[in-house]
Amino acid sequence: MSHSVPTVAPGSVGVVETRYLDLPEPIPLDCGRELYPVRVAYETYGTLSPLRDNVILVCHALSGDAHAAGIAKTPPEAGTRDGFGAEERDGARNKGLGWWDGMIGPGKAFDTDRYFVVCTNLLGGCRGTTGPSSINPETGEPYGPDFPVITVADMVRTQRAFLRALGIERLAAVAGGSLGGMQALEWAVSYPDEVDSIVVIASTHALHPQGVAWNAIAREAIMRDPAWQGGRYYGTGRAPDAGMGVARMVGHITYLSAVALEGKFGRRLQFSDDIRYTITEPEFQVENYLRHQAGSFVKRFDANTYLYLSRALTYFDLARQHGGGSLERALEPVRARTLLIAFSSDWLYPPSASEEIERALRALGKPVELHVIDAPYGHDCFLLEEARQTPIIQRFLAEAGAD
Amino acid sequence: MSHSVPTVAPGSVGVVETRYLDLPEPIPLDCGRELYPVRVAYETYGTLSPLRDNVILVCHALSGDAHAAGIAKTPPEAGTRDGFGAEERDGARNKGLGWWDGMIGPGKAFDTDRYFVVCTNLLGGCRGTTGPSSINPETGEPYGPDFPVITVADMVRTQRAFLRALGIERLAAVAGGSLGGMQALEWAVSYPDEVDSIVVIASTHALHPQGVAWNAIAREAIMRDPAWQGGRYYGTGRAPDAGMGVARMVGHITYLSAVALEGKFGRRLQFSDDIRYTITEPEFQVENYLRHQAGSFVKRFDANTYLYLSRALTYFDLARQHGGGSLERALEPVRARTLLIAFSSDWLYPPSASEEIERALRALGKPVELHVIDAPYGHDCFLLEEARQTPIIQRFLAEAGAD
Repeated sequence: MSHSVPTVAPGSVGVVETRYLDLPEPIPLDCGRELYPVRVAYETYGTLSPLRDNVILVCHALSGDAHAAGIAKTPPEAGTRDGFGAEERDGARNKGLGWWDGMIGPGKAFDTDRYFVVCTNLLGGCRGTTGPSSINPETGEPYGPDFPVITVADMVRTQRAFLRALGIERLAAVAGGSLGGMQALEWAVSYPDEVDSIVVIASTHALHPQGVAWNAIAREAIMRDPAWQGGRYYGTGRAPDAGMGVARMVGHITYLSAVALEGKFGRRLQFSDDIRYTITEPEFQVENYLRHQAGSFVKRFDANTYLYLSRALTYFDLARQHGGGSLERALEPVRARTLLIAFSSDWLYPPSASEEIERALRALGKPVELHVIDAPYGHDCFLLEEARQTPIIQRFLAEAGAD
Repeated sequence: MSHSVPTVAPGSVGVVETRYLDLPEPIPLDCGRELYPVRVAYETYGTLSPLRDNVILVCHALSGDAHAAGIAKTPPEAGTRDGFGAEERDGARNKGLGWWDGMIGPGKAFDTDRYFVVCTNLLGGCRGTTGPSSINPETGEPYGPDFPVITVADMVRTQRAFLRALGIERLAAVAGGSLGGMQALEWAVSYPDEVDSIVVIASTHALHPQGVAWNAIAREAIMRDPAWQGGRYYGTGRAPDAGMGVARMVGHITYLSAVALEGKFGRRLQFSDDIRYTITEPEFQVENYLRHQAGSFVKRFDANTYLYLSRALTYFDLARQHGGGSLERALEPVRARTLLIAFSSDWLYPPSASEEIERALRALGKPVELHVIDAPYGHDCFLLEEARQTPIIQRFLAEAGAD
């Protein structure tokens, strides 16, 4: 389709449109409640094979959406895609490009000439899938804090119900970074007979306590903003933008490494060679960057969704939830081949977590490979280091196909 | 004096009282303004020698005060000293102990049998020294945002004026951790003929950009709290406690290492072996800890002081301010012997910063020694690792005396 849209680069899936599907049945949740109705926003790239055996599910991270690849048919409002995805990707700013466009397309890591790639907005999201900003059918008002507390397993359960509604019962692969990698792991553990392989990037089996703390701080920043109003801010003309901005700032610094910040900003001043003696205005370029990121994020993201997804990713704990405290026991059911990719400078989802998964799978005699890529950009690497991940993923998927 | 106060432990300086001194002259500030009147809160331990040549000035960090050692004569209100000092010291909670009590006293690192140890609350502080919560003589109201923006050099200028008012014109040593270490460096550079030695612990010649970012986030959290009211919250019955709490949470996590958090909290849940599915309440022990720290901090600390001191420590940049960008040139005037102590797990003030200072001083042929202590508690080590710092400091000071 690229001939009709001159701006589409080679390797692009072209112009895409997010679609929506209402699930036929309620989704049972870990908390004991059921959720109905549930709408799922999704995009697909490539062609489903007649045998329906070429499906790759791509899972997004905390602040992503279903628009993983290509150019959005409806361009975003100016500024609203700035700093999109869980983390920043300068090159894609405001162009309407999907958050993993460098990885999904003809000839790319997830090759749409061969695979039918599916991405859904997560349960609890604010980009088309049912979440706390959706209408609660019992009240006719947005759920807000009445939305049930959800888990990664609930997200996966929703994805599975969605895929079944599309007539897809088996996945060639589930892939994702960060929270997306947690979903891939959950798929392999909970539905071992339905997943051939998983690609788990910059992720973990359980967030370490410092990561739990950063997430708690981000949530506190939102909930302490009086405009949050206990979560019932919809329609009031006020939203917790101030607190969300702080949450986003915390996120940004944890997604980058100290070395990356040094290279990107150093201690360069914002306006001159000397300080201006101000408390309220940015003096350093890194301070201005943080304000800018905060400002653009609040335009496109719902604060309650942030709270719910942040909570879900801190809950995620494979060993606790599936192994009675033992990671090895939790991974016992896995039948998928596992590819783990971690980044040396990622201190939020450090390589040690992937190493623990690798060790446990290896002890169980299950096929697993781990690649720790030496790169300086911290957790953001999973969105930035596309060129170095591509051959690893391509080879892994090709070997899977050869099984 | 310990026989009359049974609770005073051996090695304690005993019961002490913070005193106050009004400086006779205005303090000229880097921003071009002058400040008058200026009151300084201070404590002293030990006895001033007839030659006045045994004075050690101890400088506190972001959230410390003049009460560095001994037991406060006026005990703090319950809870108000919890989490005191720039960082937490469990053992001293609510006992009224000084923030560096383990380091100052008879036979301790800063031996009050030999030295006259002085600690002042910093300019801009909220614990007795003139700061943004003090009355502006021009308006009869608290300064608030009209308080001049101050620098580490201004703090040091104030300390010097204070010491001169006490009749002290020369310091055997200036010592401090974190922001306190910056003051020691500033003393050595700005008043080289008045300082025999400096002890710079867990500090830096310029905070790295990630540290600049953390401080910016903390200030944003305060300033975005509507209760801050542009800094004019005094007397309104409202204070930016919510934002201050978030700022303190950020501080706490940056003061600790990931390893320390793992050891202290792991992923242990707060109330049971299973999650309770709540967004608003703490589920993990580390989440509860953060709330507790936030709650106790806001009771005792002024938000504007936090903003001003945080700003001052991000400005501090020896190379920019004194060396035209060259650290070596900045340190050229130094005549003091320099002891640097850093901690392996301190990622806020990493050992690399101390190594840069050491390298520059060594290149200049100046006496310097650096000790990097291998310890897991992050930046907090400077308050926790007293036993391992003590022999290093004692030997360093003894050698100084032998010169």
